[in-house]
Amino acid sequence: MLRRIGVFDSGIGGLTVLRQLRRAFPQLDMVYLGDLARVPYGGRSVETITHYAADDVRFLLRFDVDAIVVACGTVSSNAMDALRGRFALPIYGVIESAAARAAAVTRTGCVGVIGTQATVKSGAYERHIRTIDPDIRVVGQACPLFVPLVENGIAADDPVAEIITDRYLSAFDAENIDALIMGCTHYPVYRPALEKRLPGVTMIDVGEALADALRSELGPGEGDGRVEYYVTERSAAFDQVVRIMDAAVDPADIKVENNFI
Amino acid sequence: MLRRIGVFDSGIGGLTVLRQLRRAFPQLDMVYLGDLARVPYGGRSVETITHYAADDVRFLLRFDVDAIVVACGTVSSNAMDALRGRFALPIYGVIESAAARAAAVTRTGCVGVIGTQATVKSGAYERHIRTIDPDIRVVGQACPLFVPLVENGIAADDPVAEIITDRYLSAFDAENIDALIMGCTHYPVYRPALEKRLPGVTMIDVGEALADALRSELGPGEGDGRVEYYVTERSAAFDQVVRIMDAAVDPADIKVENNFI
Repeated sequence: MLRRIGVFDSGIGGLTVLRQLRRAFPQLDMVYLGDLARVPYGGRSVETITHYAADDVRFLLRFDVDAIVVACGTVSSNAMDALRGRFALPIYGVIESAAARAAAVTRTGCVGVIGTQATVKSGAYERHIRTIDPDIRVVGQACPLFVPLVENGIAADDPVAEIITDRYLSAFDAENIDALIMGCTHYPVYRPALEKRLPGVTMIDVGEALADALRSELGPGEGDGRVEYYVTERSAAFDQVVRIMDAAVDPADIKVENNFI
Repeated sequence: MLRRIGVFDSGIGGLTVLRQLRRAFPQLDMVYLGDLARVPYGGRSVETITHYAADDVRFLLRFDVDAIVVACGTVSSNAMDALRGRFALPIYGVIESAAARAAAVTRTGCVGVIGTQATVKSGAYERHIRTIDPDIRVVGQACPLFVPLVENGIAADDPVAEIITDRYLSAFDAENIDALIMGCTHYPVYRPALEKRLPGVTMIDVGEALADALRSELGPGEGDGRVEYYVTERSAAFDQVVRIMDAAVDPADIKVENNFI
């Protein structure tokens, strides 16, 4: 039975995944790390993403965790084999469970994936979905501006968010998708804009899919339900971004630790 | 007489400064470093900015340079004292020369400064301008979305650029500015949008001001006019961003070196 897990993300967006994990595992102890000193990962090379992710895992191992959850879509789609080869404990990413959910819900047999450039370029979702059902067509679209827009307080109903959403999602206009994987931790913030632009399409929250899948697979876990938060630095807009991502966390409770980067 | 200088920036934007330096010093040898593996610096803490900038200087010292030019507005406004205290060679940032130019051109006695969050928060331009003339009023405005917009190919005449420009520059509507310091290497790309929103205001290109000031102070320099380009990685949109910044550089001529980070 799990007692304590480590959860990391390139930044603060992973709090959307952590919230889902806390819902599914209220008893489990969790240690969260957001690598704000090196965020964003989504436009970087596979080599750099892997290097940073390995640092992040190594930090979490100090807390005697039983497993690692990779909240970051970019790391989950680019560095899982490397991480699993390097570390002995179980490491869970967001791809498999979201791919399974998409394959289960699609009726048209066509699924959309939005994510960072590195996530879409990796083809990870397509590979996993086609392992489940090779007849499903997967259409990917990178949305690199969503992260800086969210982090600069541009809300889902802001005209800028709507223009950019319209441009990115027009990639699906000629496709018959009925499910869309929101493949980056920041994207649930834009869910209202996504649903407005793609009415009738089922939105898949990767944090929710992962939390539900792990709960089924691993049971409830034990522990005291304590959560510790670390970041590699406090950036200029730190408090504001924390509040956008998870109203339940007090920014003052998040500690800074960067002696490992 | 200078023979070889090292020039660094958090990323590719510093090529706009390098272009001005090559215009002013056609004979000088130059080594450019863009820290793409850790870009952007503009929202990070002073501690992290200083740490990364010191790594960048240390890398350039390998090339036996006579001086360092900090192209990055964020480093120039937050880490110059720390860098000058740590390294023995001359280190030039973009603040002093742009501040002097702004003080020289303003007739209204009110100057605007746009830059990253860290640049505006530092108050560096204000301090330098008021050393020259304590009666000049300096109004700063952070424009954190300009960098990601430029790097994602959003041109100056795009409606999104115009909406965001309008919001940021509305900070100057109640002020009588007649000069605006474009305090980040990416901003010259948006000069047309800035000029349209603030007609009659003199735009100050910090790379141009720095190159002119150094040329007057240091003479023409000697050398073979060779320029070497390094980055700490090739990001996903690398070639595209290089072309936006400087059409004279072939992305294929830029080497990757990251053993120092």
